[in-house]
Amino acid sequence: MRTLIESALAAKAASAQVAQLATEKKNEALRAIARSLVERTGEIVEANGRDMAAARERGMESSLLDRLMLDAGRVEGMAEGLRQVAELPDPVGEVMEQWTRPNGLLIKKVRVPMGVIGMIYEARPNVTVDAASLAFKAGSAVLLRSSSSAYESSAALVRIMRETLSDCGVNPDAVCLVEDRSHGAVDEMLKMRSYIDLIVPRGGAGLIRNAVMNATVPVLETGTGNCHIYVDASADYEMAERIVINAKTQRTGVCNAAETLLVQSDWAEAHLRELLKALTDREVELHGDGAAAGYAEGMIPATEADWADEYLRLAMAVKVVSGVEEAVEHINRYGTKHTECILTADGKSAEYFLKNVDAAVVDWNASTRFTDGFEFGFGAELGISTQKLHARGPMGLKEITSYKYLVIGSGQARP
Amino acid sequence: MRTLIESALAAKAASAQVAQLATEKKNEALRAIARSLVERTGEIVEANGRDMAAARERGMESSLLDRLMLDAGRVEGMAEGLRQVAELPDPVGEVMEQWTRPNGLLIKKVRVPMGVIGMIYEARPNVTVDAASLAFKAGSAVLLRSSSSAYESSAALVRIMRETLSDCGVNPDAVCLVEDRSHGAVDEMLKMRSYIDLIVPRGGAGLIRNAVMNATVPVLETGTGNCHIYVDASADYEMAERIVINAKTQRTGVCNAAETLLVQSDWAEAHLRELLKALTDREVELHGDGAAAGYAEGMIPATEADWADEYLRLAMAVKVVSGVEEAVEHINRYGTKHTECILTADGKSAEYFLKNVDAAVVDWNASTRFTDGFEFGFGAELGISTQKLHARGPMGLKEITSYKYLVIGSGQARP
Repeated sequence: MRTLIESALAAKAASAQVAQLATEKKNEALRAIARSLVERTGEIVEANGRDMAAARERGMESSLLDRLMLDAGRVEGMAEGLRQVAELPDPVGEVMEQWTRPNGLLIKKVRVPMGVIGMIYEARPNVTVDAASLAFKAGSAVLLRSSSSAYESSAALVRIMRETLSDCGVNPDAVCLVEDRSHGAVDEMLKMRSYIDLIVPRGGAGLIRNAVMNATVPVLETGTGNCHIYVDASADYEMAERIVINAKTQRTGVCNAAETLLVQSDWAEAHLRELLKALTDREVELHGDGAAAGYAEGMIPATEADWADEYLRLAMAVKVVSGVEEAVEHINRYGTKHTECILTADGKSAEYFLKNVDAAVVDWNASTRFTDGFEFGFGAELGISTQKLHARGPMGLKEITSYKYLVIGSGQARP
Repeated sequence: MRTLIESALAAKAASAQVAQLATEKKNEALRAIARSLVERTGEIVEANGRDMAAARERGMESSLLDRLMLDAGRVEGMAEGLRQVAELPDPVGEVMEQWTRPNGLLIKKVRVPMGVIGMIYEARPNVTVDAASLAFKAGSAVLLRSSSSAYESSAALVRIMRETLSDCGVNPDAVCLVEDRSHGAVDEMLKMRSYIDLIVPRGGAGLIRNAVMNATVPVLETGTGNCHIYVDASADYEMAERIVINAKTQRTGVCNAAETLLVQSDWAEAHLRELLKALTDREVELHGDGAAAGYAEGMIPATEADWADEYLRLAMAVKVVSGVEEAVEHINRYGTKHTECILTADGKSAEYFLKNVDAAVVDWNASTRFTDGFEFGFGAELGISTQKLHARGPMGLKEITSYKYLVIGSGQARP
């Protein structure tokens, strides 16, 4: 077994090679990994079976078991993801800007790889392959810390990726798994400033919070989405019902699902009863303020905690507000800077909302569920950033690169 | 006296207004502050006199006293800086990219302010005005933590800026000084995730390290520059002497000064004796490896510490290397990812160096001293980033902004 420091050193050593790989070489390796995963589906499913058995024994709940489970269809899904990443343009080496100074210096801003990306993630084995393939295409090595519950699955996937990289003549340490399964290994990883250039935590709020609070390596914070939909006075009812139902119920366990509904009081008078019925018909549990309670029977009174909660289930907080100003104020107070939505036919309200809401993504007449790397057209996604530095919103290949300046002179010294 | 939390709350409250200010309003306020500073020079110099007297009493060394000192000329310099910032294009609101998805969604990536920027800096009172003006123009409020030794000067400057902002009808809390002068206030500031969006430390290595190691607010690391110049076999002697002397001796206490000289062995045989003499003629103390020692008398033997040291004085480490590969290896091992330079007439060597050196700025036949926001044409500079996230190298107005995505639909729900 490799110690954490051995894995980190190996990833760092490999990162210099990965940074220099030609685009076609990277794409070949990604396609070869896709083939290997499909060919060795049996080996993957068997390893996953051990994780599943252990999880059942510990009494893991069924929604989490479903996330953990791998079958032939899901392996094919991962392979398809790899083939798609191979098709994406290579971000490395792109000249982002260039200009010449009066003294003749030519300055080029060039996109470069991060180096080593550390991923810390929970029981979704597919993240192992998604993160490794994105990091690899973006020219970085990756150090993967899988949760214990998905360890056997992750180990099998990493083994296959590494063997295939070797077969392609690429240093297998481009993809390293943290084999030290102790909790201490995570804390140590968060402080490995000499080996890791970037930490991306993916998982529940506790995992992300631990990374943010304890890391000295720069962290790209992902995930938590207490997303709001504000229905303005002029909103079309049909559109409001379609978007609110979509945002709340299409998938509930995801960060871009809506959690709080804010409704302008005149609109509430005209339509809120019907909208709330549409939600309760779909078994959404409602937590409302005093004014909202008048529009549905048996609503649970909302507490302060409801405004801040990311339910991640069929539940929604409902509040009646006077207008767009109050909506923005509420959102900037309780939101998590992920995705916020206004439904309105009034351009002035929309403009105010788009300008004043502080979030990675602000929607006008569109579902919050579109906050996603594929829906944005990035072709891939490492996660959704909810912080303001470096990258905001869906993070595709470009968002996991850095840049450097090349200054080309003819002997200039500074006067 | 305001407590730290009161100052932070005030800055946060003001940041929403600063974010919305029209460009012309911001420029007017910046020009008004320039006028006020010049008009009230006496008040500034008097406050600075108290800092200077206290510093002399504590025995502060003369180079630091010089940094601390303000006179009419330096106040005019700050005013000129403000007028220049007023002339720069406003980064806020710029549409960086936009595209339409097949489902009709229009996605706009728009530049937005950071919110509240926390500056922690040492005894250079001009940073008070530089940082406040840059943050203000970039639409953010600023929370300034000046060192104790420059506190009276900083307080006078902030008082004048705040009074002028008020006169211009702008919330004076756009510029807040941390009035709590305890060391605990810095540690507390580093963890104010609810109030501060970004911390920028400017000062010595200890100050920066403390911020990086203890902050939970995202930090943009600035500063430390162990910059190398590699002289390749084909380098022109005249150019090498001009650039090495410029990079080492023009100003020694700055992060973009050169600290280590790497010389290809054939070139060393032909020219190193002459180059080292040019350095010692300018009183540069040389620390060399065994091979370098052959080219100058009385050279101090270099130790491991010399390769890592940022001298910030008239001293330079010298090493003879076999070629560009060894130079890159040495730099990637000991460099601080600030600025690295190759002098060569050989395009292949240059290409290898530019591609493989991991640093914010890589120079070919130009002095390391050009790593500077003004020299890059940014018109202003908040500092020089030596890390890979968000911004690398000189940080101008754009580098202290964030962005958000606006998604404009016509009722789309996710299928």
